[in-house]
Amino acid sequence: MSEISIIGAGGFTGKELLGLIARHPKYKTVHITSDKLAGKSLSEVFPDLISPENLIFKRHEDEVPKGSLVVLAVPNEASLELAPKFLDKGHKVIDLSGVYRLHDQSLFEKNYKLKHTSFSLTDKAVFGIPEIFRDKLKGADFVSNPGCFSTSVILAVYLLGDLRKKVRARIVADCKSGISGAGGRVEDGGFSFNSVYENFRAYKILTHQHEPEIQEYCFAGSGLSHPEILFVPHLLPVYRGILSTMYLEAESEDLPILQTLKENSKSETFVRIRETPEEIDLAKVNQTNFLDISARVRGKNITIVSALDNLMKGAASQALQNINLMLGEKETLGLI
Amino acid sequence: MSEISIIGAGGFTGKELLGLIARHPKYKTVHITSDKLAGKSLSEVFPDLISPENLIFKRHEDEVPKGSLVVLAVPNEASLELAPKFLDKGHKVIDLSGVYRLHDQSLFEKNYKLKHTSFSLTDKAVFGIPEIFRDKLKGADFVSNPGCFSTSVILAVYLLGDLRKKVRARIVADCKSGISGAGGRVEDGGFSFNSVYENFRAYKILTHQHEPEIQEYCFAGSGLSHPEILFVPHLLPVYRGILSTMYLEAESEDLPILQTLKENSKSETFVRIRETPEEIDLAKVNQTNFLDISARVRGKNITIVSALDNLMKGAASQALQNINLMLGEKETLGLI
Amino acid sequence: MSEISIIGAGGFTGKELLGLIARHPKYKTVHITSDKLAGKSLSEVFPDLISPENLIFKRHEDEVPKGSLVVLAVPNEASLELAPKFLDKGHKVIDLSGVYRLHDQSLFEKNYKLKHTSFSLTDKAVFGIPEIFRDKLKGADFVSNPGCFSTSVILAVYLLGDLRKKVRARIVADCKSGISGAGGRVEDGGFSFNSVYENFRAYKILTHQHEPEIQEYCFAGSGLSHPEILFVPHLLPVYRGILSTMYLEAESEDLPILQTLKENSKSETFVRIRETPEEIDLAKVNQTNFLDISARVRGKNITIVSALDNLMKGAASQALQNINLMLGEKETLGLI
Amino acid sequence: MSEISIIGAGGFTGKELLGLIARHPKYKTVHITSDKLAGKSLSEVFPDLISPENLIFKRHEDEVPKGSLVVLAVPNEASLELAPKFLDKGHKVIDLSGVYRLHDQSLFEKNYKLKHTSFSLTDKAVFGIPEIFRDKLKGADFVSNPGCFSTSVILAVYLLGDLRKKVRARIVADCKSGISGAGGRVEDGGFSFNSVYENFRAYKILTHQHEPEIQEYCFAGSGLSHPEILFVPHLLPVYRGILSTMYLEAESEDLPILQTLKENSKSETFVRIRETPEEIDLAKVNQTNFLDISARVRGKNITIVSALDNLMKGAASQALQNINLMLGEKETLGLI
Repeated sequence: MSEISIIGAGGFTGKELLGLIARHPKYKTVHITSDKLAGKSLSEVFPDLISPENLIFKRHEDEVPKGSLVVLAVPNEASLELAPKFLDKGHKVIDLSGVYRLHDQSLFEKNYKLKHTSFSLTDKAVFGIPEIFRDKLKGADFVSNPGCFSTSVILAVYLLGDLRKKVRARIVADCKSGISGAGGRVEDGGFSFNSVYENFRAYKILTHQHEPEIQEYCFAGSGLSHPEILFVPHLLPVYRGILSTMYLEAESEDLPILQTLKENSKSETFVRIRETPEEIDLAKVNQTNFLDISARVRGKNITIVSALDNLMKGAASQALQNINLMLGEKETLGLI
Repeated sequence: MSEISIIGAGGFTGKELLGLIARHPKYKTVHITSDKLAGKSLSEVFPDLISPENLIFKRHEDEVPKGSLVVLAVPNEASLELAPKFLDKGHKVIDLSGVYRLHDQSLFEKNYKLKHTSFSLTDKAVFGIPEIFRDKLKGADFVSNPGCFSTSVILAVYLLGDLRKKVRARIVADCKSGISGAGGRVEDGGFSFNSVYENFRAYKILTHQHEPEIQEYCFAGSGLSHPEILFVPHLLPVYRGILSTMYLEAESEDLPILQTLKENSKSETFVRIRETPEEIDLAKVNQTNFLDISARVRGKNITIVSALDNLMKGAASQALQNINLMLGEKETLGLI
Repeated sequence: MSEISIIGAGGFTGKELLGLIARHPKYKTVHITSDKLAGKSLSEVFPDLISPENLIFKRHEDEVPKGSLVVLAVPNEASLELAPKFLDKGHKVIDLSGVYRLHDQSLFEKNYKLKHTSFSLTDKAVFGIPEIFRDKLKGADFVSNPGCFSTSVILAVYLLGDLRKKVRARIVADCKSGISGAGGRVEDGGFSFNSVYENFRAYKILTHQHEPEIQEYCFAGSGLSHPEILFVPHLLPVYRGILSTMYLEAESEDLPILQTLKENSKSETFVRIRETPEEIDLAKVNQTNFLDISARVRGKNITIVSALDNLMKGAASQALQNINLMLGEKETLGLI
Repeated sequence: MSEISIIGAGGFTGKELLGLIARHPKYKTVHITSDKLAGKSLSEVFPDLISPENLIFKRHEDEVPKGSLVVLAVPNEASLELAPKFLDKGHKVIDLSGVYRLHDQSLFEKNYKLKHTSFSLTDKAVFGIPEIFRDKLKGADFVSNPGCFSTSVILAVYLLGDLRKKVRARIVADCKSGISGAGGRVEDGGFSFNSVYENFRAYKILTHQHEPEIQEYCFAGSGLSHPEILFVPHLLPVYRGILSTMYLEAESEDLPILQTLKENSKSETFVRIRETPEEIDLAKVNQTNFLDISARVRGKNITIVSALDNLMKGAASQALQNINLMLGEKETLGLI
């Protein structure tokens, strides 16, 4: 059994990951931290979590079991500080924050409104979408897990492969997320029942911190420059799930989009291409590591719809998929 | 008191209109029909409707009170048959179906999959968005009330006025509707609690029957040809409300979109321009005749967000606004 | 037009009352206060409220228009202080807090964990359920509006009339309320979307402050001592509405409960007795002043189900019904 | 690996059970049937189900793998016919319908409105609540899995042990269920989004088919006669979960209810006694095999609150707990 330590295990993603590891045949969670929950047991904090051992939350600064793989599920500021520390001590590290994803420091600092104190690590971090960077992820020591919105958009575009050379590099990504993807743990007024139920709104319109990340990776490997991304997230009155509707414009009519998506994902276990975009919905991917994609073409217009569970393929289960690669296990182990 | 007859009063829109007329100082509902509900009383069918008289549902074919204004809230096929009949008898008619909105018969027939049997009436029908066609609506005998999605998109674009000449005539309209706007009365599997709750999906992607209507009217009066519309409706797990996110592309950077929207709607009671598009939400327009609009511009990219209550400004209260104009009353009477 | 001042108009109930008065043919809101919202306009605070004049929120201490009827929609502590003040100045006052409902000071103080500083006023306050205290409410200067749960239970039992002498004075009242009836305005963790959605729980079990109020009034006029009430409120993942299920035990079998309820409410506009308790639901009373009641008897067991809108018959519209009586207007004016 | 066949695997419970078995270390589903879905694959029908093999649905009449344990998850009529057939062929059978639970044939037939064609089997069926009938369930060949409401009420009362002799045998069980517990798969009008969302109602008041089952088992082993049960189920606008509020009356004051519940469940893995009944909610038991219970006593009045996931401890996971016992495995295997 490989040992896993989760730093910041008290949030939405930490909980999902704990559940996944509990069911994984080769991993075992050995250490969990949360400065806020330190001293409490897992079953107190997450009474609905099925986990074999009733671990006690430690503090972030407490000693981490030697040799364990470290998952960082902490805010951006904490990741800046903790990632170098754990890497120095020889731990393999997978970071779920946004601080090691962008390769342009000034863009990062402007976007995250945060000074980067360990920027050189970014070059060492593999961006954790296995369907794109599988080879680099195998045996990797340091992985930067992508954002939930980002995964839903990047993969849908990336899998167009060479067809990306035939579309205009201006992509509208109109994304809709349940509250767990919009950061709803913080119990502020913005996520009260009153403000979410029987309501709907857009937020961070053209200003969301995931926009540059989508820009950096969705044309990866195509030899093209970064596309212009119009990213507008919206808040759905549901708990989990992201559905993204993307609008692209082709140079020529009737490109074989659906066929290409099928072709380019035929060996991917966790990408499912559906025949019509009307079949895509949150329920089909809920609590799974699947990303569902489909598309409709009308003349030069291409509409792609994708869906994933923001807590799973958008966070915890994609992290586990990456951990499988980092530790040399079968990529799908414990996920299917 | 002017008398109003509602043909097809048993649906979502009929109910809202009954409530609005009940509170209107100068109108009175005198006749309601529903072939399915014939013989039942209003309070049986709508126990939560506050209405002074407990009318009994008649059949569509029953005699309609002479001189009453007729509201047609029936399916497309029925409107084709009933509108000419009531107009012949000298009633003023406002039709809420989609059959008298498009001025291209073959486009209509292709789009609605329906042979048009009274197409010549389309030319007599005034399209019922008062903010665009106010003058023609005053005293009109025959009005075609617009669709709910259409109103949310058309008005948001129309109010750009001359700036429409500086945008590309290709508009992405990514719209999200509660189930009452998506036709959820019919109790089929598509609108079961299971299929809607904690779920979200797109439907009729690039194939919705409102698309040509949006195309016909959003550039009205600009002297420009019909724009290309990419209209994708989505189904929200809420009861009422539509939020539309629109993406336009300008010829030049930083057009004064918000300022222009304010300018062009300054005399409009029911259009509210908000400072930021993040302020737009369903709750603010719920059960009102308001259309809220805002926008954000980044370079040549323009993102407009609008919201309305699909049962109100998207149907019943806009119908009442039109009826006020048809009958020579103050446009806002009973609505504010 | 009679003038009405609302002290504490920024809450759930204040908003509903503002809407009701706006549609009332003989009343006009002339003054609204909220220490938190002072300086803001009505349309800023409640963008979906249809109201003729765009009043500005004042502070509680600001001068109230002479001669206006004062509605107190403030917390218990504030009502203790403000009610005597406004009564002294000659205003008619209707208080929506809980502080003038109980006639046993020590019970009040224990129950509300609050020292009563104007207890003598309790004797002057008429308890505002018109179906019970109509005669005293006519022309009354001071009315204490009942709680939402209380109304749903008290009236259902009270309307049994003399049959109350044949039931055991031990009543189980298992009540379920939407979040607006459970005090959900305060944006604390207890009413975050996370904690309410796809969830359900009981709260204040046998310890809710409305229990003594139900006890004091549900056997009113029967000559019997106060019943034992087992009151357990529950929190529904909905916005508005209360459904109460009550369990009583009779001395003898098959009492004519439904018939008696019908008989005793036959002249009541706002009480509707339904043939079967399965017909009772929140949707039928939503946004109305109706209280729906039905019952099922099996041997000596009596099960009564009632439903009301906690913001309406449970608060604002019942207040308006009381105001109509206080000002000598027709009781149903503006409510039907 | 023991082999399991699921007859009627296309429903709510079938799906849950498939997921549980897929994660179980010693069981394997080898055969699934559904007359309606015959020919379709598991991933088509349940795209969000994580299961190692993509089984194809067969017809009920198709050959069942020899030696496999048969789970019957079919309607009552089908269980009457199929259970004897599978038992005759030597399969171990666990039946999830209601037809082998009641030991009074005329009560059964009246209650289920169904003629019993294999009543003698009832005596052979062990009632599948392990916390009550563990010894009989070990190695059993035929088990009748209890109803979801029943489990939530029966166990809460049963665990009072000898204290049951000190309470009156009249129990009010006011139960609230999500739509999956109320039979919401059938897409009829009763479970449309419109009728459930922002709504709440009671159903089958004092007439639900689970009432006699609760009566038969909640005083099991106490030597007392069957109690009078007042069982009123209600429909919550949520997907899963049941919370039951029970009202009992004691002979004497202040019985040590909570302490007794703790004592009597101290060796039970899946029963959790919480300190206060306000802590009980659906979220804590969601997707687990736990039954949470707590209580409050006031004088002679006892209020007990329990919660479980109707699809898990109320159906599928309790079935798996029983299967573990039937097959001689550790009771908690695959459940914790």
